[in-house]
Amino acid sequence: MELVPGNSLITATPQEGRELAMMIARKTIGAIQPDAEVRQLLRPSYATSADSLTAAGHVVAVEFATIAAANNYWRDASA
Amino acid sequence: MELVPGNSLITATPQEGRELAMMIARKTIGAIQPDAEVRQLLRPSYATSADSLTAAGHVVAVEFATIAAANNYWRDASA
Amino acid sequence: MELVPGNSLITATPQEGRELAMMIARKTIGAIQPDAEVRQLLRPSYATSADSLTAAGHVVAVEFATIAAANNYWRDASA
Amino acid sequence: MELVPGNSLITATPQEGRELAMMIARKTIGAIQPDAEVRQLLRPSYATSADSLTAAGHVVAVEFATIAAANNYWRDASA
Amino acid sequence: MELVPGNSLITATPQEGRELAMMIARKTIGAIQPDAEVRQLLRPSYATSADSLTAAGHVVAVEFATIAAANNYWRDASA
Amino acid sequence: MELVPGNSLITATPQEGRELAMMIARKTIGAIQPDAEVRQLLRPSYATSADSLTAAGHVVAVEFATIAAANNYWRDASA
Repeated sequence: MELVPGNSLITATPQEGRELAMMIARKTIGAIQPDAEVRQLLRPSYATSADSLTAAGHVVAVEFATIAAANNYWRDASA
Repeated sequence: MELVPGNSLITATPQEGRELAMMIARKTIGAIQPDAEVRQLLRPSYATSADSLTAAGHVVAVEFATIAAANNYWRDASA
Repeated sequence: MELVPGNSLITATPQEGRELAMMIARKTIGAIQPDAEVRQLLRPSYATSADSLTAAGHVVAVEFATIAAANNYWRDASA
Repeated sequence: MELVPGNSLITATPQEGRELAMMIARKTIGAIQPDAEVRQLLRPSYATSADSLTAAGHVVAVEFATIAAANNYWRDASA
Repeated sequence: MELVPGNSLITATPQEGRELAMMIARKTIGAIQPDAEVRQLLRPSYATSADSLTAAGHVVAVEFATIAAANNYWRDASA
Repeated sequence: MELVPGNSLITATPQEGRELAMMIARKTIGAIQPDAEVRQLLRPSYATSADSLTAAGHVVAVEFATIAAANNYWRDASA
């Protein structure tokens, strides 16, 4: 099962890095709970709960920290 | 969908870095729950809960850690 | 709205760094919930809950990690 | 009890790094609760709860951050 | 109010570093809730809850990560 | 009270590093709640709760991140 799209943490920009962070976070949930139907059933419970959305955002923030470090924070792109 | 305003983590000051951290955190919530009406309905539930506010602050702290590292902690700006 | 007092992460000592971490954490809560009256109403709920205090302490620990790194852990001050 | 498969954090690719992160996270749960039957009984409770899945994903994100740093973010592999 | 005992993150050993991490975590709780009587009343609620103890341990782990980095992980002491 | 077995973060392998991470996490819980009987009484409550086990695993992941950095991710051992 693909856990890291493109099998690389290197992206051209922070935007792509953030998209990758979200994809990686989602794919890991998919690996832990492979049943797509169950995941679909669960969506309303977290998508309409502020705390659940915050917790999901927290995971993306942790993944992004890793990807940003991998890309040296895209400093060159910003130079 | 824009996830990183300005598509860069580089800011002139810590204040701007903190503002960027808050924007990035918010934009990710918006990407997870794109329905603005739902998000608006959810606001009272987290904005009037100490624990929810703390959890949101925690995410901003993680985002800020990444942005601060990206900017070498604005050490030059402080020199 | 001021999010980073003094607009710098550089402090003379760990004590000042810790104070800054607490201020930054508080200011972010204030930015998320600008209504001071609401925040005041919320104080009893977290100030008399062990888990809420721990969660708040956790955020300060994350902010402090960033500020400590910014100041090279005040190694020079300790030399 | 084996806690780190292969007793190394070095992997060829981010995909393998992510798989290792998931294995390490699981093995630690197994070390804390060695009774496989109990763990099996617990699966429905977390596999059908959005917040539990998010919390599990969060642990994998933290483990992955360590493994990614160990492998210099597989920068060479991406060069 | 003293938030960092000795106003330094530098310690001779990991043991002292861990003790400092616990003290810093406690002092921050004391700064957030200065009323010692309230804190004393709260002790049973977290000291007899596995999840509360885990959450407190988590904060100490984050503080220790900062202190360990400050001391270069006491590598010299171990050489 | 011993908080860091061997008073060093340096281990020969990732497996030993992970074991040390678990011991350090446990010892800190023991320092926060020194009463072994209470801790024993609490075991069923976290050992049979998926979320509690995940939270405990999260702490071990944070401790391991520190120990792995201390050991330069055992890169030499893997070379």
